[in-house]
Amino acid sequence: MSAVASAPGKVILVGEHFVVENEPAIAVAINLRARVRATKVEGEGVEVRSRELGLAQVFRGDEPRSSPLYPVYFAAKVTMEYIGVESPLRVEVFSDIPPASGMGSSAAVAVATVAAVAKALGVKLAEDEISRLAYRAEEIVHGKPSGIDNTISTYGGAIAYRKTEGFLRLEADFSPIRLVLADSGLPRSTGEMVARVRRLKAKYPRVFEPLYHAAGRLAIEAGKAIEAGNFRALGELMNVNHGLLSAIGVSNEVLERLVYRAREAGALGAKITGAGGGGFIVALCEKGSEERVAKALREVSSRVFVVDVSGEGVRYEE
Amino acid sequence: MSAVASAPGKVILVGEHFVVENEPAIAVAINLRARVRATKVEGEGVEVRSRELGLAQVFRGDEPRSSPLYPVYFAAKVTMEYIGVESPLRVEVFSDIPPASGMGSSAAVAVATVAAVAKALGVKLAEDEISRLAYRAEEIVHGKPSGIDNTISTYGGAIAYRKTEGFLRLEADFSPIRLVLADSGLPRSTGEMVARVRRLKAKYPRVFEPLYHAAGRLAIEAGKAIEAGNFRALGELMNVNHGLLSAIGVSNEVLERLVYRAREAGALGAKITGAGGGGFIVALCEKGSEERVAKALREVSSRVFVVDVSGEGVRYEE
Repeated sequence: MSAVASAPGKVILVGEHFVVENEPAIAVAINLRARVRATKVEGEGVEVRSRELGLAQVFRGDEPRSSPLYPVYFAAKVTMEYIGVESPLRVEVFSDIPPASGMGSSAAVAVATVAAVAKALGVKLAEDEISRLAYRAEEIVHGKPSGIDNTISTYGGAIAYRKTEGFLRLEADFSPIRLVLADSGLPRSTGEMVARVRRLKAKYPRVFEPLYHAAGRLAIEAGKAIEAGNFRALGELMNVNHGLLSAIGVSNEVLERLVYRAREAGALGAKITGAGGGGFIVALCEKGSEERVAKALREVSSRVFVVDVSGEGVRYEE
Repeated sequence: MSAVASAPGKVILVGEHFVVENEPAIAVAINLRARVRATKVEGEGVEVRSRELGLAQVFRGDEPRSSPLYPVYFAAKVTMEYIGVESPLRVEVFSDIPPASGMGSSAAVAVATVAAVAKALGVKLAEDEISRLAYRAEEIVHGKPSGIDNTISTYGGAIAYRKTEGFLRLEADFSPIRLVLADSGLPRSTGEMVARVRRLKAKYPRVFEPLYHAAGRLAIEAGKAIEAGNFRALGELMNVNHGLLSAIGVSNEVLERLVYRAREAGALGAKITGAGGGGFIVALCEKGSEERVAKALREVSSRVFVVDVSGEGVRYEE
């Protein structure tokens, strides 16, 4: 018995970092997806294979935890525990989402794993069950994740998230725009960036309080702009948001170069996406202008992706 | 009868742009100066000569207003009207301050002109008189200037300025630091930048209100850091201030490159100084590190100045 499920990656449009202090953030699902096939097999344990990592590993009990595939196994394990059915399995991962890019690769793999494993064992889980189980696997990877990634990967579309208030689905038609993502080539270190921002904020609370307040209001305005289909306003707000990320110390020369090249090539807005310090920038482009922006970015970035916002969350495949 | 006076240029350390909306800003005088010699002559009118511009022009009545030397003549004229002594004059301008750089060249020339002209005609003006008369010449150049430039050029040192509250002298010892200034090579257009920021602020008032509030508090914290001699904190606050300038839309790729090169070369802080869009960046450097920073900046800027903060305002010379 075999089942295949897939789930999308995500991009944070506004609010990263500020979300840690309970300001709202907005994320969208994109049309890069992780696909997982779960198959009941004879024998023992769970074999996890990753096409992209070129790795295979058999897990039994809670071992080996050091494997980079352990989070996938963990997602399969908590799913079997939750549905009360255990079986030897093979779990195969195929992902279009660049790993360690801030595009939610690990959450998409977790979401697709949960859905595929349950279905292979004869259980169709509801979306909220899938999201919650995937969150547990995300905790293994990220410590204390915000929950944005597993939520957006499960439901698709666009969501506004606030720590104490949870998620709000944004009703929006993203067909007029595409996103261009460009890699700085610099390694991301989310934990280090978050710690650096926390130190600076603790040192200058009287400055950072209104600054965070501005970021929160910006996310609310951005949500309104999305629901109104006002992508020109969304772009302007993304530019302002980028400046606030620069203010809290997570930008650098390479990221700035990418951001300004994208704006000069005609993007409606461009900013760091994710923790900064490295990783990707995202440019919001009216359809028809995305290739010009992508071309300008390819001159200074070795990895550029042109993606659509996707309404589609987790789904089963044939 | 001849008299020579000189006055310093200035650098804005924090608060430019935000000062327009009544947030505080901090400026310091630097050891680049404008020198003016005023000489009573036979004949008619006022002849103005500029060594740097390579120009000479004789003015009579209110003509010719189109001359780039007219503001110098105007400063001489209002001074003679104020002291009630009129005479044919030669006014010679020598300035180390790069013009149109945001370093207050025109105000320094105006301040030195007022002082030199009055003294050549036998009157020694008080500092506040000099500053007020120079302000009138600045109005000819800039429309409605903040008054920062003529004030700092007259008094020297460091001042905090707020539109509705005027000027406050900061007591500070700047001997541990030097400033490195680097030209983006892009033309400044203060009026255009101010108009652009005003449009964006009017469009997103709920975002910009707390953002300006953050900038205001930042200037207050920066003032405290200066008075405490805590230049590490001042540098961090300048970096945050730079991000806020990026957020309001006055940065670009060239300015960002200069800012990050300076920080990476060891500056305590680096930011746009002045209206942005072009013009200069300023880097705050501990003494001993300024040459490393200047060297890094010379690789990407054709004009780099290493300057000291100067306690000396307008003075008479032999």
